[in-house]
Amino acid sequence: MSKLWGGRFEGCIDPFMARFNNSIGFDARLWQADILGSQAYAESLFEAGVLSSEEKEQILSGLDRVQQEWAAGSFLLQPEDEDIHTAVERRLHEIIGSTAGKLHTGRSRNDQVATDLRLYLRDKVDDLDSLLGELQIVLIAGAERHLDLIMPGFTHFQPAQPIRFSHWLLSYFWMFQRDWGRLEDLQRRLDVLPLGSGALAGTPLAIDRQALADRLGFSRISPNSLDAVSDRDFVAEFLFWAALLGVHLSRLSEDLVLFSNPNLGFVVLADAYTTGSSLMPQKKNPDAFELARGKTGRLIGHLTGMLATLKGLPAGYNKDLQEDKEPLFDAIDTLELALPVLAGAVATLEPQPDRLAAALDDAMLATDLADWLVAQGIPFRQSHHIAGEVVREAERRHCSLRALDLATLQRIHPAFTAAALAVWDFERSVEQRAAPGGTARAAVLDQIYQARALLGATQEP
Amino acid sequence: MSKLWGGRFEGCIDPFMARFNNSIGFDARLWQADILGSQAYAESLFEAGVLSSEEKEQILSGLDRVQQEWAAGSFLLQPEDEDIHTAVERRLHEIIGSTAGKLHTGRSRNDQVATDLRLYLRDKVDDLDSLLGELQIVLIAGAERHLDLIMPGFTHFQPAQPIRFSHWLLSYFWMFQRDWGRLEDLQRRLDVLPLGSGALAGTPLAIDRQALADRLGFSRISPNSLDAVSDRDFVAEFLFWAALLGVHLSRLSEDLVLFSNPNLGFVVLADAYTTGSSLMPQKKNPDAFELARGKTGRLIGHLTGMLATLKGLPAGYNKDLQEDKEPLFDAIDTLELALPVLAGAVATLEPQPDRLAAALDDAMLATDLADWLVAQGIPFRQSHHIAGEVVREAERRHCSLRALDLATLQRIHPAFTAAALAVWDFERSVEQRAAPGGTARAAVLDQIYQARALLGATQEP
Amino acid sequence: MSKLWGGRFEGCIDPFMARFNNSIGFDARLWQADILGSQAYAESLFEAGVLSSEEKEQILSGLDRVQQEWAAGSFLLQPEDEDIHTAVERRLHEIIGSTAGKLHTGRSRNDQVATDLRLYLRDKVDDLDSLLGELQIVLIAGAERHLDLIMPGFTHFQPAQPIRFSHWLLSYFWMFQRDWGRLEDLQRRLDVLPLGSGALAGTPLAIDRQALADRLGFSRISPNSLDAVSDRDFVAEFLFWAALLGVHLSRLSEDLVLFSNPNLGFVVLADAYTTGSSLMPQKKNPDAFELARGKTGRLIGHLTGMLATLKGLPAGYNKDLQEDKEPLFDAIDTLELALPVLAGAVATLEPQPDRLAAALDDAMLATDLADWLVAQGIPFRQSHHIAGEVVREAERRHCSLRALDLATLQRIHPAFTAAALAVWDFERSVEQRAAPGGTARAAVLDQIYQARALLGATQEP
Amino acid sequence: MSKLWGGRFEGCIDPFMARFNNSIGFDARLWQADILGSQAYAESLFEAGVLSSEEKEQILSGLDRVQQEWAAGSFLLQPEDEDIHTAVERRLHEIIGSTAGKLHTGRSRNDQVATDLRLYLRDKVDDLDSLLGELQIVLIAGAERHLDLIMPGFTHFQPAQPIRFSHWLLSYFWMFQRDWGRLEDLQRRLDVLPLGSGALAGTPLAIDRQALADRLGFSRISPNSLDAVSDRDFVAEFLFWAALLGVHLSRLSEDLVLFSNPNLGFVVLADAYTTGSSLMPQKKNPDAFELARGKTGRLIGHLTGMLATLKGLPAGYNKDLQEDKEPLFDAIDTLELALPVLAGAVATLEPQPDRLAAALDDAMLATDLADWLVAQGIPFRQSHHIAGEVVREAERRHCSLRALDLATLQRIHPAFTAAALAVWDFERSVEQRAAPGGTARAAVLDQIYQARALLGATQEP
Repeated sequence: MSKLWGGRFEGCIDPFMARFNNSIGFDARLWQADILGSQAYAESLFEAGVLSSEEKEQILSGLDRVQQEWAAGSFLLQPEDEDIHTAVERRLHEIIGSTAGKLHTGRSRNDQVATDLRLYLRDKVDDLDSLLGELQIVLIAGAERHLDLIMPGFTHFQPAQPIRFSHWLLSYFWMFQRDWGRLEDLQRRLDVLPLGSGALAGTPLAIDRQALADRLGFSRISPNSLDAVSDRDFVAEFLFWAALLGVHLSRLSEDLVLFSNPNLGFVVLADAYTTGSSLMPQKKNPDAFELARGKTGRLIGHLTGMLATLKGLPAGYNKDLQEDKEPLFDAIDTLELALPVLAGAVATLEPQPDRLAAALDDAMLATDLADWLVAQGIPFRQSHHIAGEVVREAERRHCSLRALDLATLQRIHPAFTAAALAVWDFERSVEQRAAPGGTARAAVLDQIYQARALLGATQEP
Repeated sequence: MSKLWGGRFEGCIDPFMARFNNSIGFDARLWQADILGSQAYAESLFEAGVLSSEEKEQILSGLDRVQQEWAAGSFLLQPEDEDIHTAVERRLHEIIGSTAGKLHTGRSRNDQVATDLRLYLRDKVDDLDSLLGELQIVLIAGAERHLDLIMPGFTHFQPAQPIRFSHWLLSYFWMFQRDWGRLEDLQRRLDVLPLGSGALAGTPLAIDRQALADRLGFSRISPNSLDAVSDRDFVAEFLFWAALLGVHLSRLSEDLVLFSNPNLGFVVLADAYTTGSSLMPQKKNPDAFELARGKTGRLIGHLTGMLATLKGLPAGYNKDLQEDKEPLFDAIDTLELALPVLAGAVATLEPQPDRLAAALDDAMLATDLADWLVAQGIPFRQSHHIAGEVVREAERRHCSLRALDLATLQRIHPAFTAAALAVWDFERSVEQRAAPGGTARAAVLDQIYQARALLGATQEP
Repeated sequence: MSKLWGGRFEGCIDPFMARFNNSIGFDARLWQADILGSQAYAESLFEAGVLSSEEKEQILSGLDRVQQEWAAGSFLLQPEDEDIHTAVERRLHEIIGSTAGKLHTGRSRNDQVATDLRLYLRDKVDDLDSLLGELQIVLIAGAERHLDLIMPGFTHFQPAQPIRFSHWLLSYFWMFQRDWGRLEDLQRRLDVLPLGSGALAGTPLAIDRQALADRLGFSRISPNSLDAVSDRDFVAEFLFWAALLGVHLSRLSEDLVLFSNPNLGFVVLADAYTTGSSLMPQKKNPDAFELARGKTGRLIGHLTGMLATLKGLPAGYNKDLQEDKEPLFDAIDTLELALPVLAGAVATLEPQPDRLAAALDDAMLATDLADWLVAQGIPFRQSHHIAGEVVREAERRHCSLRALDLATLQRIHPAFTAAALAVWDFERSVEQRAAPGGTARAAVLDQIYQARALLGATQEP
Repeated sequence: MSKLWGGRFEGCIDPFMARFNNSIGFDARLWQADILGSQAYAESLFEAGVLSSEEKEQILSGLDRVQQEWAAGSFLLQPEDEDIHTAVERRLHEIIGSTAGKLHTGRSRNDQVATDLRLYLRDKVDDLDSLLGELQIVLIAGAERHLDLIMPGFTHFQPAQPIRFSHWLLSYFWMFQRDWGRLEDLQRRLDVLPLGSGALAGTPLAIDRQALADRLGFSRISPNSLDAVSDRDFVAEFLFWAALLGVHLSRLSEDLVLFSNPNLGFVVLADAYTTGSSLMPQKKNPDAFELARGKTGRLIGHLTGMLATLKGLPAGYNKDLQEDKEPLFDAIDTLELALPVLAGAVATLEPQPDRLAAALDDAMLATDLADWLVAQGIPFRQSHHIAGEVVREAERRHCSLRALDLATLQRIHPAFTAAALAVWDFERSVEQRAAPGGTARAAVLDQIYQARALLGATQEP
């Protein structure tokens, strides 16, 4: 039984219960945040007159030593260290003696852990922000490199219209840019200090909470102690962020699993991101992308589980909240691998111009044919119908659309002239779509320009 | 089979497939957004030279009539109206003839539905913003009304420390304030026009997309057509917003289900928000709160389902995306009832001062006793231990803590003096916690002041 | 306010609350189950001496009339009909007068709705069982029809080894057969009568619950009244069943979305299950499969939401349980369309022998080459390595594997003889795998035999 | 890069990719299953003529040594051990040399891991079965011990009717009994051997798969190789089982969190399952139950995540399936602690007869009063209304129901006689409900008898 629970308990704790209850197995990674929070809190206790200058120095130097031990990997956990807070304080007590017992004055594990978790996540969000930016840079660089490459654009995974390979790459840039925006919003909501909320009712000490916040690099302090100790919105919001980023990664992955299938053969993946088969020697499996796609299920599960855990909890801290950490840590770990892996896999993939060109079918220009008819003054609905008949005629003859001669087209509709035959040109097709957001070279270059500017403005030092 | 699919199809559609495929049953509610989008688009087609002035006027006046029919409830759906877009265009055609066929020029259902959904949600977000603000106002008003009322604060649903009833009410204000912040962020991300993206590749027409956006009240245009037609991030983000708001509503509900249990008896709910039993005549069931709690499961489910649907989709529009609407609409409907119901139920509940007072037990002042010892210079960990022994002594004697005389306290620890007995005062206890975010009257008044200012600054006209 | 809540309420119900609370909008579909349950219960009340013979007849004939009105669509809902139970009883009262008030004796809406829901689901499970069986029959018939067709088998969506098209079809048969087994298990757990449990504590009447169960076709009675009124395990289990069936449908759908992509072109889908594009006349979109895949997200969401709603509820009936119906009904409706649609779409698809043959690449026989080496006594790990070198050599020469002559093979490894060249035969390859569960003709025929037998034994009259 | 991928790869694997890809960190716990499967498979290879008797003995004795090393904790993982299969085979190779390379003949990691996972889960299901049975025994023993104890039964967490404490305990027995039934069903579906399915297409070797199944203790063999290697239904079904069991544990936990709140005070929990507070010395927190409730969120999340991962995968093995293990293992670990902790916590809790008696309010007998009126021939709906007026009259007078004299009752309705006053007796009330499943002593004893019989028949040796 933890000695920290005080003098009231007489029995022993069930050893299964101890394992069920203890969080040190997963919250040890908060050591740095925990020590940082305690260092700042010791300053506040000194300012509030709870600690003498000497006591404060004793505590700070003791905490330094604890920190060094963790950093050096020499910190030894003891069986009674049920969580990181207990472990740090126990060790501090061993180093500096009973003065250690003053550090927890007016503080509860409830406001302490809420603070630690925000400090920890704040750093991790910065890391993920960088990793996301690197993936975005890879996409931009690829878009620049392959600007002339035209590929089939799909809807319903059916060939629809030609697009630039760059346009496809950039479509993911913009998804990730929205993820970046959501992360920035989350950062603002993370930027609130709960410390000084006690167990639920606030602190009786004359602590300057805003000064404490400044010391820890938080802009604001939590406005209500009861809310502060049980607020895990930032965990749920992070998990949602991770899940939706995961959805985007999974869509990119799905595309590349499909594109690297030899029947399409649009891209060849680098060996560094694929694996072979234990049974089939010819295999080159797109594991990086399958794993990213599969792990998105896990990210969705973490979000769902967290929301289910939070639902219906009464006000104030409840032990159920201890379940906040494992999904959070796992989501961070998952993305800290998935982002660089996908960045590497995308950076090294080789699009295959021949295969992309071969996959461009004239039927993908049927919309251009309809557009040409519209330009001749035929209402779109009718043009669409006429183009459909052209497609059907080509199917009937088992030929490509461009193999239909003008006479045939004119039998379908008299508005056709020789000028119509100009539509059988994929380059022309993508250049036609020149409005912002479209596939024309200038429009794509403009996307790249915007994308570069956004990264410059927001994600570089 | 829909006539809009053009001239290529020969067979008939399976009637089960038709029902599986059609969305008019749930997307009819987009009629206003659909017509609004078409009106603005007709202007753009005119500016781009696709429509003559006369054609534009014809279309606009036709759309006006369609709108009037919907508004009057006289619009008649036809069996071939598979979705709202088809229905509106079919009717327009009936009214104005073949010019209707020009309205879809350069537009696809893909960019059209993405636009409609943003227009629709934009309005609904405004409504929900107001409803949320009304609930927040109810909480502030309650906090003002019951400022003097002290209640047991719980952690682990065990009595912990006394807090003001107002402090408890305000803890929910701040949760909802975070929801408000997230909604504001979502509004920024909603504020992007996808129209002009075509099916996937952009538009070949000389449409001024920014002018179109201005006309429809959007600040920005989507930067990539392929992304624009399959971006449902805003749906997922709304569903997350709804689920987390639901979590907050469910926590408030859980508290009030518990508080209105006669064994606690902290509040009495108004008849208008409770129901009786078909078998037990004495029952007064807190159905409003149980339903809000239960429906949070549904909101979590909608979010989960949407993310699962989006996961792993290849780039571009896929029909799976049709599944975006029903969870979105249901989440809106659920909250449009839950928010006013909870606002009403909270506004009309009556806290019971006698029962609240009776539930205040001296043991809830044990922390104050420990704090008093700290003020005498005893390290907190030791003070906490001593206070624990005092609690145990009272338990042993089956008496309240204040019934222990000074001599007894001094046997436990010699530092106790008569001054220590001042801690047996719940009002003193809440006043001790005077730091920002605490339970002291001034601190709570400051919360109310901040809260009023926030609502004034952000949610009033 | 409902008149059924008795004489205690004075205020009026908030109209928002009424809409929040009422379930008639979705539980009206339980009318048949509700009347059936009441008919059987009236018999029990008569046997228990609560109803005279005359009263019983009056009630039964009144219920008959109510049933006829529902069946004829002439039942008129009234504003005070908050749920189906209230509606039926209100109408019965209008028809037969105050004797109607005796029907609810000893019964609560809690045990009544639990009974209704089981009665309703029991029928729906039978329907779904049949629909599932029909899809399975389609798969068997397809397997029989296309027994000679060889296709590329994939792992990681990379060509792996040749398999029979039938083998692929049958792989889904077995998934659905497991679904069938789970449904049968659920049926056993559905087969329990809760009626006679009152609101929570059982019935004070001398009702023969087993006789009542017999009358309603249930095998067993619930053993504990408190559990009986709040047991929704069968709803959760059904929703899991639906979600996992959905997963199987989504996998089949994913395959067919991919296979019908023209770059693979393995199958052509019937027009009756595809749709065209509003913008691109050449499109033929596999909507049936995309919708089935997308709707699986919804099924997963319903399960998640239900579990989140149930989690942490205190014992006994809580109003949260009203949230059981909408996900249940929607899951049923979804599958009642998805199953016949997919059965039709699979029954009518046309595999394309030429395209399947063209997609068979010699590299898919590399494992056969390794197997041949194993048969010569070379350990598998080494054989696998040698076969890998053969693949690499062919890649280096940009030729197919069979284009490598014996001398080349022998340079890679001396164990190769002319007999090795026999492996370049896809038919031989599938025939090699003759163990049960394999791709050889006999093994596949045995699967078909087993499948037919299972359907005959278990799913036919 | 793993050496097992054969001779085709030239590049190096990205170290991030290696970490992303490797599963040894979590699948090492399959070592026993993996070795068991290989032992049985070596026998089959011998029977099929692939291994000589000597080679088989060499492999078996090598595997024995590998097993001993794992069991002794002396197995040393190497950097190239990407998963448990690779690790075991690598070590076998070190011990016995190149013969080790024959063990994988005709086997793929795809059928191997599917087999390992079933072997592993089969054992764990047995363990969980026992742990569940122990919790059920605790519930029965408690029900026997406290048979005379009457408590308030709640619906909507409002006092409803008196019930026996035993009846409440047993309500959970029956929930867990359904969990037991579902686990038994799962066991049947687990009891299928996938080995012999190769990578996807079956085995070319003359392996007697049924004999192999017998050797490994499986009743049946998988009927289709393509399905067998990607079937994770049993994982999803286990996760659903775990989540629904979690829901039951969370409901029990919710009850006990509420019942141990001092305002109710129905039970006192043993110190061994509660914890104290780091700030508040008087606290005794029901952590065991809060954790069980909170961890149910995690179980729901695992199920959701798994279903999302499986959804939409194409046929055959996809690397996404590697995501099956961590949620499965974590769900097992969670329940292997939660079940014994809750069994201990329930076994040691002390119901408080005085507090339970004090919580029984006469209003909970209002239904009995209505029942008494029914027995006098008044229709239930009217009786219910009259009893409601009695409750209201007592509320008006601020007195208990039994304090209303006969004259008062008769003013409310003339049917009241002195005999009606007998209803004011809680013991009489529970005894009235004597039908099976009710609260009467005999009915509860019958439940206990049934429960004991079920455990005897099904869960004891």
